[in-house]
Amino acid sequence: MPHQITALDLPQAELSDATKAYFEKCVEKLGLIPNVLLAYAFDEKKLRGFTDMYNDLMLGESGLSKLEREMIAVAVSSVNHCYYCLTAHGAAVRQLSGDPALGEMMVMNYRAADLSPKQKAMLDFAVKLTETPAKIEETDRAALRGVGFSDRDIWDIASTAAFFNMSNRVAAAVDMRPNAEYHGMAR
Amino acid sequence: MPHQITALDLPQAELSDATKAYFEKCVEKLGLIPNVLLAYAFDEKKLRGFTDMYNDLMLGESGLSKLEREMIAVAVSSVNHCYYCLTAHGAAVRQLSGDPALGEMMVMNYRAADLSPKQKAMLDFAVKLTETPAKIEETDRAALRGVGFSDRDIWDIASTAAFFNMSNRVAAAVDMRPNAEYHGMAR
Amino acid sequence: MPHQITALDLPQAELSDATKAYFEKCVEKLGLIPNVLLAYAFDEKKLRGFTDMYNDLMLGESGLSKLEREMIAVAVSSVNHCYYCLTAHGAAVRQLSGDPALGEMMVMNYRAADLSPKQKAMLDFAVKLTETPAKIEETDRAALRGVGFSDRDIWDIASTAAFFNMSNRVAAAVDMRPNAEYHGMAR
Amino acid sequence: MPHQITALDLPQAELSDATKAYFEKCVEKLGLIPNVLLAYAFDEKKLRGFTDMYNDLMLGESGLSKLEREMIAVAVSSVNHCYYCLTAHGAAVRQLSGDPALGEMMVMNYRAADLSPKQKAMLDFAVKLTETPAKIEETDRAALRGVGFSDRDIWDIASTAAFFNMSNRVAAAVDMRPNAEYHGMAR
Amino acid sequence: MPHQITALDLPQAELSDATKAYFEKCVEKLGLIPNVLLAYAFDEKKLRGFTDMYNDLMLGESGLSKLEREMIAVAVSSVNHCYYCLTAHGAAVRQLSGDPALGEMMVMNYRAADLSPKQKAMLDFAVKLTETPAKIEETDRAALRGVGFSDRDIWDIASTAAFFNMSNRVAAAVDMRPNAEYHGMAR
Amino acid sequence: MPHQITALDLPQAELSDATKAYFEKCVEKLGLIPNVLLAYAFDEKKLRGFTDMYNDLMLGESGLSKLEREMIAVAVSSVNHCYYCLTAHGAAVRQLSGDPALGEMMVMNYRAADLSPKQKAMLDFAVKLTETPAKIEETDRAALRGVGFSDRDIWDIASTAAFFNMSNRVAAAVDMRPNAEYHGMAR
Repeated sequence: MPHQITALDLPQAELSDATKAYFEKCVEKLGLIPNVLLAYAFDEKKLRGFTDMYNDLMLGESGLSKLEREMIAVAVSSVNHCYYCLTAHGAAVRQLSGDPALGEMMVMNYRAADLSPKQKAMLDFAVKLTETPAKIEETDRAALRGVGFSDRDIWDIASTAAFFNMSNRVAAAVDMRPNAEYHGMAR
Repeated sequence: MPHQITALDLPQAELSDATKAYFEKCVEKLGLIPNVLLAYAFDEKKLRGFTDMYNDLMLGESGLSKLEREMIAVAVSSVNHCYYCLTAHGAAVRQLSGDPALGEMMVMNYRAADLSPKQKAMLDFAVKLTETPAKIEETDRAALRGVGFSDRDIWDIASTAAFFNMSNRVAAAVDMRPNAEYHGMAR
Repeated sequence: MPHQITALDLPQAELSDATKAYFEKCVEKLGLIPNVLLAYAFDEKKLRGFTDMYNDLMLGESGLSKLEREMIAVAVSSVNHCYYCLTAHGAAVRQLSGDPALGEMMVMNYRAADLSPKQKAMLDFAVKLTETPAKIEETDRAALRGVGFSDRDIWDIASTAAFFNMSNRVAAAVDMRPNAEYHGMAR
Repeated sequence: MPHQITALDLPQAELSDATKAYFEKCVEKLGLIPNVLLAYAFDEKKLRGFTDMYNDLMLGESGLSKLEREMIAVAVSSVNHCYYCLTAHGAAVRQLSGDPALGEMMVMNYRAADLSPKQKAMLDFAVKLTETPAKIEETDRAALRGVGFSDRDIWDIASTAAFFNMSNRVAAAVDMRPNAEYHGMAR
Repeated sequence: MPHQITALDLPQAELSDATKAYFEKCVEKLGLIPNVLLAYAFDEKKLRGFTDMYNDLMLGESGLSKLEREMIAVAVSSVNHCYYCLTAHGAAVRQLSGDPALGEMMVMNYRAADLSPKQKAMLDFAVKLTETPAKIEETDRAALRGVGFSDRDIWDIASTAAFFNMSNRVAAAVDMRPNAEYHGMAR
Repeated sequence: MPHQITALDLPQAELSDATKAYFEKCVEKLGLIPNVLLAYAFDEKKLRGFTDMYNDLMLGESGLSKLEREMIAVAVSSVNHCYYCLTAHGAAVRQLSGDPALGEMMVMNYRAADLSPKQKAMLDFAVKLTETPAKIEETDRAALRGVGFSDRDIWDIASTAAFFNMSNRVAAAVDMRPNAEYHGMAR
């Protein structure tokens, strides 16, 4: 391994069979085990807590498409300049959209993208929630409803944006390194 | 109910027996069901994702005391001006420390507290990670090691601070209201 | 005295009879001598300058109620994270309103409170004046007039918000400690 | 009068003889009545409160020279971009120092001036107190002591910087206009 | 020379005849050689690159008057607190407008000036472009068109504001000192 | 042309033979005409001003390698979230370094890169100059000299960082779109 996954030296426990199976499924489906999972794997309870929440948010049922959730992930991570999340989720936007430039716009500045008013409002909310959470008011929720989002959609936008505000900070705090494979994907 | 728990109108599912039992245990141990749990209860998968991560972080094994984890929670929430988390976790700091003024200092400005250099470094890191996550560097981790934290402790400081950066934003986005009981606790 | 009132070691002059009488009246009416007065008492001219301005602003005639002036004090001090002023004036909001939660909202995030549009506009102005004074323009004054404030009211809102921007900074600069009694008041 | 002194229309009371005499003394000594005094004159109690505090801070006894206090006034007002205070107190720095460029540096960026380490530390403290009052810590006071300031000097630096954080905001809130004469003074 | 023009010690090349002639023309027309030109003169190619761009932007054909371009220069430099540019271009605003107070307003806070809506929009755009370039959107350009600016005017506003964001930073980085003569001009 | 190069509708002049030849050379050497050149081509004087300065800074003699200058370009553009410059110069970093991940780190957060102390200091200076130009002081230049940069190198670091603070803002103001080819280069 040419580079550690994080800057922390954490005692690595023996992986359970369930975790080994989960990681094998990752390799099968994604071609790799995302480093974030390896970073959490020093404690399987923490790993499961992370993956349960992540999988529900990003892959579960929602009025938001998977691409839209990835767009939120990347726009939030751009504000926070998170190398790990921009790399991994930038690749996801490229893959899910089939539009490499869209992935780059999310990484660099979502305002450069030619989005529908609905998606623009979604990212405006996610970014305001990231930058100045204390200043969110009813008018901000009303703006989302005004472009057609349901209250359940608002929950999903909020909790996705909030989740990446968490992940960005875990990654920053431990200097988490993304898998090298992401860089070349879906270019 | 004089006031809704959140500003969102979410279809409320019938609670499972497991969730009902969990809520009963809350009433037994805390004297109330924290509103954040009721806010998540519209979807039991999300509720479980939240409580699993929360309970591991705040109640699980760690080199940090429960009080220290609550201090991180409140210092982070102070930066983000989160009414819900400052109310609920401010009460927790008062209770766990038996020192009402300490709770208020965490809410208002942790720099006012007369902390050990170790606890001061812990909160400085948590607050920098909150305000400018992109600017965390090896020197910041070194400062934590320098006052005696292990790498595992750094993970716990980081993931606790990160978690409340998530929770603060969910609460802000949906205007989550804390249980009225918190205000008078441990004064 | 378990803790110094400020971090500065200032030569304490003999108090004049007038100041002694003033402090006795404080004890009579408030049950304590606010520490800010003791902090200024090293120089009676400075003490009198402070109390004259303070008493006129907070207790004198105004179109704003005493509670509204205290709400401004606390909302401004929340932006500046001033431990002294949040403690002392948070208690005042609780007392004058008889609503402990209102006091907490002012301390934590005034946007969480269910205010009239008039009071909301008042605090929005006070907070903008605190955060970005250079960006106040005629439209900001017009917003206050639009919800029913007179020009004299605008003066009072402005000078109260401005005063606490001063007091917050004196308190921060000298690490002023509030009287312990405030913490338990009107909970 | 070609331009109103403020953007507020405040009922102007008849001036008392004492105030008239005070204003005459201003004309005698300064060649003008500073507009800030006329702005406050709608209420003589407020005028007196302002002048008592101002005169004590800026003209009273202190370990800081009058020029140093004016330098603090201008450096603080530069952060807050206060047109009134930069104009009036920029003129004062030019006059007291006999160095027009020094006045301009205080207005534009005090870091451009070739100051003694003591005066540099004084302005660094005043500006930090202005920008991020919540982040003042014991090390900041220690830095002032380290270059030779006494605790009483620290009080004076702090209260002068704090006062202009108040005045800047009153001026911004009411769009206070400086006397035209200041612009040409001591160039 | 009592003071160096910059904080850098750069090997000074022999000036070409063309540059000498250019500097003589400066003395003839302006009464001085602007120090920025002397700062760049260590490398004539850089000097020529700077003056070509500068002269085109500030003196070339444009829908903006020369005064308006200088107003942009100063309003941008005020945000960046650039001592060199505020001094040199503040003088230019005073000279071109014949209104010393206007020059001071641009230096201190352009919002204090009594501008036409068109000029106000121009400076609002220039300042937003300076403070938060990433947040410029089509609505910002639309606001300029709405007050009567052509697309070519928008280019000129943008490139003038952008140019001074460059110059401010070169000057800050090398501590560039303005010619002393500017201070007294057109007062 | 599927998308305009900028959001402005500028009258396009007939290109001179010299400009046509220059553009042909671009195609020959780069495989494309960078859109920024087409954006400036509505006025050949502006185009020449831009290219003269650009070519001297980025391709001329310097103690900084071409790669280092591109790293500055991208790190600065990352702070300013400039879609055009991040795309074009991110590609340049990938090409010149042969290290796609390095290009991504410059785009996302240069602090993630494993740089030499000298290159780290170079980018720290460029980013501070971008974020808070008013706060550059002699200590910042001393830090560059301390890792081995000459005063001439400091000029080059400063003027490169400053140039991209200009270009970022021109691009933001006019919504400049990068050539699609950049996205896939050197991945």
